[in-house]
Amino acid sequence: MQRTLSDLCTILRKYGMQPELVGRDDATVRGIATLEDATDGDVSFLANPKYERFLASTRANTVVVKPDVAAPSHLTLIRVADPYAAITALIVDMYGYRKHARPAVEPCNASISPSAEIGESATIHAGATIASEARIGRNAVIYPGVYIGPRCRIGDDVVLYPNVVIYEDSILGSRVTIHAGTVVGEDGLGYAPVNGRWVKIPQIGIVEIGDDVEIGSNCSIDRATLGRTRIAAGTKMSNLIAIGHGAQIGEHCLFVAQVGIAGSVHVGDHVTMAGQAGVVGHVRIGDRVTVGAKAGVVNHVSDGVTVLGAPAVPIAEAKRQFFYIARLPEMSEKIRKLEKRISELESQLKAPIAPD
Amino acid sequence: MQRTLSDLCTILRKYGMQPELVGRDDATVRGIATLEDATDGDVSFLANPKYERFLASTRANTVVVKPDVAAPSHLTLIRVADPYAAITALIVDMYGYRKHARPAVEPCNASISPSAEIGESATIHAGATIASEARIGRNAVIYPGVYIGPRCRIGDDVVLYPNVVIYEDSILGSRVTIHAGTVVGEDGLGYAPVNGRWVKIPQIGIVEIGDDVEIGSNCSIDRATLGRTRIAAGTKMSNLIAIGHGAQIGEHCLFVAQVGIAGSVHVGDHVTMAGQAGVVGHVRIGDRVTVGAKAGVVNHVSDGVTVLGAPAVPIAEAKRQFFYIARLPEMSEKIRKLEKRISELESQLKAPIAPD
Amino acid sequence: MQRTLSDLCTILRKYGMQPELVGRDDATVRGIATLEDATDGDVSFLANPKYERFLASTRANTVVVKPDVAAPSHLTLIRVADPYAAITALIVDMYGYRKHARPAVEPCNASISPSAEIGESATIHAGATIASEARIGRNAVIYPGVYIGPRCRIGDDVVLYPNVVIYEDSILGSRVTIHAGTVVGEDGLGYAPVNGRWVKIPQIGIVEIGDDVEIGSNCSIDRATLGRTRIAAGTKMSNLIAIGHGAQIGEHCLFVAQVGIAGSVHVGDHVTMAGQAGVVGHVRIGDRVTVGAKAGVVNHVSDGVTVLGAPAVPIAEAKRQFFYIARLPEMSEKIRKLEKRISELESQLKAPIAPD
Repeated sequence: MQRTLSDLCTILRKYGMQPELVGRDDATVRGIATLEDATDGDVSFLANPKYERFLASTRANTVVVKPDVAAPSHLTLIRVADPYAAITALIVDMYGYRKHARPAVEPCNASISPSAEIGESATIHAGATIASEARIGRNAVIYPGVYIGPRCRIGDDVVLYPNVVIYEDSILGSRVTIHAGTVVGEDGLGYAPVNGRWVKIPQIGIVEIGDDVEIGSNCSIDRATLGRTRIAAGTKMSNLIAIGHGAQIGEHCLFVAQVGIAGSVHVGDHVTMAGQAGVVGHVRIGDRVTVGAKAGVVNHVSDGVTVLGAPAVPIAEAKRQFFYIARLPEMSEKIRKLEKRISELESQLKAPIAPD
Repeated sequence: MQRTLSDLCTILRKYGMQPELVGRDDATVRGIATLEDATDGDVSFLANPKYERFLASTRANTVVVKPDVAAPSHLTLIRVADPYAAITALIVDMYGYRKHARPAVEPCNASISPSAEIGESATIHAGATIASEARIGRNAVIYPGVYIGPRCRIGDDVVLYPNVVIYEDSILGSRVTIHAGTVVGEDGLGYAPVNGRWVKIPQIGIVEIGDDVEIGSNCSIDRATLGRTRIAAGTKMSNLIAIGHGAQIGEHCLFVAQVGIAGSVHVGDHVTMAGQAGVVGHVRIGDRVTVGAKAGVVNHVSDGVTVLGAPAVPIAEAKRQFFYIARLPEMSEKIRKLEKRISELESQLKAPIAPD
Repeated sequence: MQRTLSDLCTILRKYGMQPELVGRDDATVRGIATLEDATDGDVSFLANPKYERFLASTRANTVVVKPDVAAPSHLTLIRVADPYAAITALIVDMYGYRKHARPAVEPCNASISPSAEIGESATIHAGATIASEARIGRNAVIYPGVYIGPRCRIGDDVVLYPNVVIYEDSILGSRVTIHAGTVVGEDGLGYAPVNGRWVKIPQIGIVEIGDDVEIGSNCSIDRATLGRTRIAAGTKMSNLIAIGHGAQIGEHCLFVAQVGIAGSVHVGDHVTMAGQAGVVGHVRIGDRVTVGAKAGVVNHVSDGVTVLGAPAVPIAEAKRQFFYIARLPEMSEKIRKLEKRISELESQLKAPIAPD
């Protein structure tokens, strides 16, 4: 996968970028690595200013940087407006996406119901289960240990990694990718209290996942009690995320690991939820909202707002709270001193005025 | 599953409820849906006042409501004391619980030890493993990919969804349901520090789960180091919950997703733990306690108390803290003004008294 | 597994301990149990002072205690400097570690690629998958439902419990133990935003896990985008832990359940992370750091520091903050009173001086 610097610039231009090459243009690139790990022959990149200090010591011979970054003269630079998008394009070109093994379907190993429909060119690995009346799209890859329940509809080009479990009646759009161990469509926590016991409410709703959604490993997406739990097109989730029954997640959202969304929450489009954030039930979160790490959202959040803290408030307010909390000992000391000064003033005023 | 309104009232009366029908009683109901999603022919319900606004626009023709709810005159109402319990009864009647496929046990597909005992009418799906001397109760359903370790005792009518793993010697009561990917009986974090290294303590205890317990997907229930980790009868847990080694969880508790209970914690009966709440090790939590979302419990909690915050305190105190934290900038400003006013007073009193 | 008290002392001396036997030395011990659960014939221990109250009521006949513990005279005591290490040694001697069943590898049940290499005496259970060019070390135990991707290198004496998934190219050292349902090497949350959509960055890095690492159940360890995610030798992790792409975790760390480490975080050696703690991306945590339960680390942490709170600060500061937060209502009241007293002083000074 060797490339010349001229090749790299050609690739970036294909993506609509306007790379500017600074330094020797005769080098050959053999791989891509971080500034810290690169060895000679690697192209690297600087997107996060935190890593600028590595520019001096990197062994990469070419680095993709922003137009305004200063770098040691021995480095060849490719200047672009968005180095992160640029290195993505280069990784896709030089390495490509994971290739899936495509062994022939062996019905004796996988457990495929006679009433299931398997799309053309789909791969069902040994040890997978496709239950009755499930439909698997064209070109899908179903890894070992995957369970697909009755009547599920799995779109074209879907990839389900090992041990993913999809409960009955779930709907997955095209190009959905779900990583190992994630469960879709389990019953949510639906019980009615009757005489001090919990009576289970049959969870008769479903889960619907839109096109191009990617979900990390070991997540749990509850089926709805009634109706459907929805994850809309283009949304990406990391690992160990819990989505409650009936939650509606919009398009092109990004959820970091260990996020928890309670039942019946409504999340808009282009929402970012940072790690370990949580949202209580029945709350509405607008479009383009950002929820900070560990935030606990208990109220509606309007479009475009960034919230932080638990209970979560707009970020400026949260930062002001953190600022003052850190100064509480000082505030307490100020109050103590004020009390002392006032007592002195009071005793001065009460003192009998000495006659001259 | 069509029902007349008269049928619905009959069902509710069977559960000891006293429904009052208001409006046309000749309608036929074909399904159950939320107020927002209902279409003509559906019965819906209003339990959470947050959704009252949907009464005006719902396309349901019948709604189960509390006695005091005002509703548009075109809607037929079924008035009951507890609409949530009522709709539960109607869902159970009209839809019932999940029916499990019951293929014949095929020993060539499932991996069943010759020394295991399989109860009458139990279903062991292909791809399940039943290890040596394990006993599976009557009518149990063991889905594909489930692993049941040596000497486990699994009660009657238990349902283990795909890829559940039960380590050796675990005991599950009757009617226990465990959702996909949950692990019961793994070793807890038991190590003794010796010369800067961690020496593993063999985890020789077990897990015991009582009758009628339901556990969500992708949970982890540690076996005890010594003795047993217990989850008592009737308790219900959601997804991605961690229960530490030796923890004792009481009866009829309700744990929301991502709750974490450290080792040797003792939780009473009828305890509710909201999402992402955590409890540190060796703490006792009384009966009928409620732990709020994201709360971090570090001390014992008495019977009946609701706690919130991290560190968790009684809810009234937590809310007072949140209230004052939000007003910290204002408090700081008040202190600044007080300092200014006192300085003025001080300089006034110190000033030489001007002669008239 | 009966032992005399003299046997027990011999075992402890083998571990370099100096046990002192107080009381009858003719007893026979048949098992090990907690003070609360012990029955006659059991040896128990007291390591955590919280449990001292159980000394009076325990039915154990022998208890391992620290040299300075006072105990009822009917109990036989084994006094040692570190009772926790001592009881660990006794559990190892009397019970030992889990014995794994070792059925012969049956290629018709497990799905083993012809290009995989299986080490001598390794056990591959039915229902496991070993993909192309994977190498499994000597004496390894691969439980049912485990998936080992192409080109993985799995060390000697590794134990992978049921349904563990290892993505391609991962490297596991010797004696690594991974509990059920954990996923190693899934893609991290790597996307570049392009025109309001997320473009996936191929995750071309790997995961490398050092010797003697133990990882709990249902964890998720992301592969690196570039380079490698590393968990160094001797580190132990509990359940439901998320490790982000490119994170570097040092040696002999201890991570409690539900910890989340974001991408590119660098954690030193001998670090303890308590339950539900989280660390944001690109942060450096020094050696011997302790991160408290539920802490949210957003800045670098120096060697040896203990941090707490979210955002996390050194523990003394965090405790001071908690102290003052609890006293906020009181502080607010003090400010109110000060305002009143100052107003009075002000009006006194402004008041026309009454003529005598």
